[in-house]
Amino acid sequence: MQQAKENIFNSSDSVRSAGPLKHAHSVTFSKPFVLSGSHELPEITIVYETFGTLNERKDNAVLICHALSGDSHVAAHDESDDPGWWDLLIGPGKSIDTNKYFVICPNILGGCRGTTGPDSIDPRTGLRYGMSFPTITVEDMVDVQKKLIEDHLGISRLLAVIGGSLGGLMALVWGIRYPDKLLCSIPIAATAHLTSQSLAFDIVARNAIMSDPHFHGGQYYDSGQVPATGLAIARMLGHITYLSLESMRQKFGDARNKGRHLKTAFETKFSVGSYLAHQGDKFVERFDANSYLTLSMALDTFELGENQEKLIQNMRKSMCRWLMLSFSSDWLFPPFQTKELADAALVSDKRVSYCNIESDCGHDAFLLHNELDVYGAMIRDFLKNVYRDSIRKNGVSVSSEPEEEIHFPKPPKHRIDFDRILDLIPAKTKILDLGCGKGDLLARLKESGHERLVGLEIEEDLILHCIEKGLDVIQADLNEGLRFFSDQQFDFVVLSKTLQTVHNVELVVEEMLRVGTRAIVSFPNFGYYRFRAELDQKGCVPQIDPRPGRHWYNLNDVRFLTIRDFQEFCKEKKYRIHQQVSLDTERGIVVEEDPNINADVAIMVISR
Amino acid sequence: MQQAKENIFNSSDSVRSAGPLKHAHSVTFSKPFVLSGSHELPEITIVYETFGTLNERKDNAVLICHALSGDSHVAAHDESDDPGWWDLLIGPGKSIDTNKYFVICPNILGGCRGTTGPDSIDPRTGLRYGMSFPTITVEDMVDVQKKLIEDHLGISRLLAVIGGSLGGLMALVWGIRYPDKLLCSIPIAATAHLTSQSLAFDIVARNAIMSDPHFHGGQYYDSGQVPATGLAIARMLGHITYLSLESMRQKFGDARNKGRHLKTAFETKFSVGSYLAHQGDKFVERFDANSYLTLSMALDTFELGENQEKLIQNMRKSMCRWLMLSFSSDWLFPPFQTKELADAALVSDKRVSYCNIESDCGHDAFLLHNELDVYGAMIRDFLKNVYRDSIRKNGVSVSSEPEEEIHFPKPPKHRIDFDRILDLIPAKTKILDLGCGKGDLLARLKESGHERLVGLEIEEDLILHCIEKGLDVIQADLNEGLRFFSDQQFDFVVLSKTLQTVHNVELVVEEMLRVGTRAIVSFPNFGYYRFRAELDQKGCVPQIDPRPGRHWYNLNDVRFLTIRDFQEFCKEKKYRIHQQVSLDTERGIVVEEDPNINADVAIMVISR
Repeated sequence: MQQAKENIFNSSDSVRSAGPLKHAHSVTFSKPFVLSGSHELPEITIVYETFGTLNERKDNAVLICHALSGDSHVAAHDESDDPGWWDLLIGPGKSIDTNKYFVICPNILGGCRGTTGPDSIDPRTGLRYGMSFPTITVEDMVDVQKKLIEDHLGISRLLAVIGGSLGGLMALVWGIRYPDKLLCSIPIAATAHLTSQSLAFDIVARNAIMSDPHFHGGQYYDSGQVPATGLAIARMLGHITYLSLESMRQKFGDARNKGRHLKTAFETKFSVGSYLAHQGDKFVERFDANSYLTLSMALDTFELGENQEKLIQNMRKSMCRWLMLSFSSDWLFPPFQTKELADAALVSDKRVSYCNIESDCGHDAFLLHNELDVYGAMIRDFLKNVYRDSIRKNGVSVSSEPEEEIHFPKPPKHRIDFDRILDLIPAKTKILDLGCGKGDLLARLKESGHERLVGLEIEEDLILHCIEKGLDVIQADLNEGLRFFSDQQFDFVVLSKTLQTVHNVELVVEEMLRVGTRAIVSFPNFGYYRFRAELDQKGCVPQIDPRPGRHWYNLNDVRFLTIRDFQEFCKEKKYRIHQQVSLDTERGIVVEEDPNINADVAIMVISR
Repeated sequence: MQQAKENIFNSSDSVRSAGPLKHAHSVTFSKPFVLSGSHELPEITIVYETFGTLNERKDNAVLICHALSGDSHVAAHDESDDPGWWDLLIGPGKSIDTNKYFVICPNILGGCRGTTGPDSIDPRTGLRYGMSFPTITVEDMVDVQKKLIEDHLGISRLLAVIGGSLGGLMALVWGIRYPDKLLCSIPIAATAHLTSQSLAFDIVARNAIMSDPHFHGGQYYDSGQVPATGLAIARMLGHITYLSLESMRQKFGDARNKGRHLKTAFETKFSVGSYLAHQGDKFVERFDANSYLTLSMALDTFELGENQEKLIQNMRKSMCRWLMLSFSSDWLFPPFQTKELADAALVSDKRVSYCNIESDCGHDAFLLHNELDVYGAMIRDFLKNVYRDSIRKNGVSVSSEPEEEIHFPKPPKHRIDFDRILDLIPAKTKILDLGCGKGDLLARLKESGHERLVGLEIEEDLILHCIEKGLDVIQADLNEGLRFFSDQQFDFVVLSKTLQTVHNVELVVEEMLRVGTRAIVSFPNFGYYRFRAELDQKGCVPQIDPRPGRHWYNLNDVRFLTIRDFQEFCKEKKYRIHQQVSLDTERGIVVEEDPNINADVAIMVISR
């Protein structure tokens, strides 16, 4: 195994010096390993680390996939150990709790930390591979991991595969390529393929490495010099793309002209320049240029579907539950790309949750503490729920598992409108809830044993509540429509007390009726007698939102309608109203007489 | 003068081969030229081109400042001439009309197209300057231009200075450094200083050039080889930053794997790679690496104010009118930076208009036809108005100028609410109009001879109307407040029939009362008797927007209030209501009795 001089992961400026990977195991498979191209490798060595204990049922194994410049040292093994690159998330009592789960992290194929890569000796020649190392793909990296998991560790099914960036691509491939080998997958900051912009940066980085005069066509190992300038420039470029406009402003904006004095051949006039020079130089000490070329080319040729149709075909193969996370300021693998993956899973009726976490930290956010409260909690709760469900399904008593209890927040106060909505929906149906909030209605539908439930919500903290409840929830803005669902994908689409907050009412209702056989819309009735009286007698706009401190000038509501307005809207649009339930929620009763006067809430079941 | 082998400007893939700058003039000043550092240049040569004719009054001169890799050939001189880099905008009958204006475009100091730069001969040594060429600033470039304009062409005041990118920085410096030497300045895609992200890309580019083994400390001219690899890599990086995520997707997304066969040392596997390789190689043929270093360092050290306070101090020195334009997808000089410049001008009470033009084209948008309809029209109308005003001020008969007529759109139909607002405002006051639309109210206020008028508007097409009318208008979202104005900067702040479209009512009114001594708010009154009747008798939400096709579900309005609601809001907030004018606009009269019932529109004059 190669000696590590240093261990900086991906980015963040924590330059931590690491000794050798002292807790790492190594296994060598001596038979030829066939790659997804026509090539093969005569043998494969895999270096990996494990944390926690594999239980007797072997159902608690979590595979962590590292990013381009990471390694197997994902967490510290004990207090005296070097820090791991995801210590934030992995360890006893942490989100990925090593008291409970058996965590495995192998070095990836093509890297330079022990697993077979361009700097390994080719047993056929006795020389290092160098540029003769074959072109590899993300699928090859996953195949190698599967060999370790199944053939060496004897685990037939993983509880979870988790990874960010390149690691996220591996998590995707696991779900699609080996559908029955994992229960859930958590790709973070992942994509079906790189944007042309991100691809372009990789190309410039490779051009810098390969045009370095010390590159010698990749056979520099015995020349006494490595293509240090090219590799450092590649790393500098990488660092810019891992950060964000805002995080760079925070890091360097105030001390722009305060460059540090460094022993370096690169420019140090500006503070950001000395940072880049430092990161570039340090990277050269610990990373192999051929590995960089090999891995970045695997990233660049990665393709889960050059259009949405092909992506859907791929996602359709998966059987696991998905949690997909992106970060708002990530411009290397921008959030819309992760959302496209979630969309492809949704339209294929896969169980998926998605959240674009608000962050200034760019692509590297998943390695940093800033948004740990959000992504850490989402990963923890999602994993807990998947594990709990799997144990239940297999008839294992939950009480035999320590720490299985999920803390549910207090149940919401009784909602008569929810009662009626539940009554309106036949058993075993597929239901989409738009603006699902904390998931209270979905939780009640789940208890009633419905077949398939999906929630859409825009607020991050509400999404977290849904994930905690084990629900499938997608972050989305209703005003943009529901194009990620196919026609008539659901039996019912529910819009519960949300219509009045939607700008684009026509689009939303039209979309509900496209993706659902029936739509259920509930809304506050502006025609309620008390509201009329407020306007007519007091000369004030009705206080339609009863919460204290709410006034005409600070409501979330932007649309106001009466039951009659909605009826006329349906007439105008040629929608059929199948059922109307009118409620006086203040008195907790169903209203039969003059609902446009006597009801403060209406529930409508409509179709095209 | 150096022979040009090719002439690609900044970006866009129009690789046009150009002969020598055949219409260029050259002037040499043989006295030492003092730079803003402690250095001086023993002599200065300036190469420039001109278009159109300088009139007798010498008041029609427009200076164009080119960007990093541009040159003096801004437009074709005749049909047989090579294309110019801004032919879209400059020529007979075009936005910058050479039938009317005398256009001057010099090559910039430090470049490599004839004006003194690192590849010029140092008369003291008889050798090319190379790396001994002193560090220069954008201010130095402007000083050299001023020498040309004043000392050589004898023009004491320019009508306009116009430029994009680095050229935009020069337009800024002209306005601040030589306040009385120009009537207006149009900086496009400009900034007070580079972001740390953009600075970082320049640093990586310079590292690539200076670590090229053929760089030889900058004295490569006689070595037979230039630092071609480093310069090509710098250019590739530049190209990525000139485009946008979306424009790269459009250019390369569909044919990602279709690289072209090129005679190049660089990677051509992907289409974007062969594009970059081509652009890199071509650039090396026409551009000097030392010029690249010199100019990019001038960009990087440019600083109009490291914080908003210092920026304001600088903008305060200016006396010209400003038109500042940015492009929404520009991430090299992002729009918020141009807006900061406009904000600094606003708070200093300078006459400024600003628009962030919606575009997919990134930083290069100002060179492309896509948004020409918008930026071309804004530049044309702004320039026309400045020119017309200057002629009028100097007592020259407008009729003596050809093509001076601006086509005004039809006057709006009579607005009784505008009449009353005009009545409420004393003569010669400073007025800010929030949500000014097409500028109809401002135009009437302008006719009434008010001292200073500023409009805020969010819609691009409405901003264009304001600029056409010669008004100062700033693109802004009211919901974000008015932080770019200082306390009590205006006598009156007007919010005319816009309150009901604003989400953040409390913030907007609070801000109006901070920046203005008085605020005038007009709004539709939901308490109007006909509206009450609609709800009470018909059971429908009132049709408050009278335009056909407007219903509760597709209004721009999101806030609904009665006169009484507004009065109570003021009481709650401790705002004083000085005057209330209530109108029945259907009947065209002022309402005195029971306004909350009888008026459909109310106008309130309030203060803290």
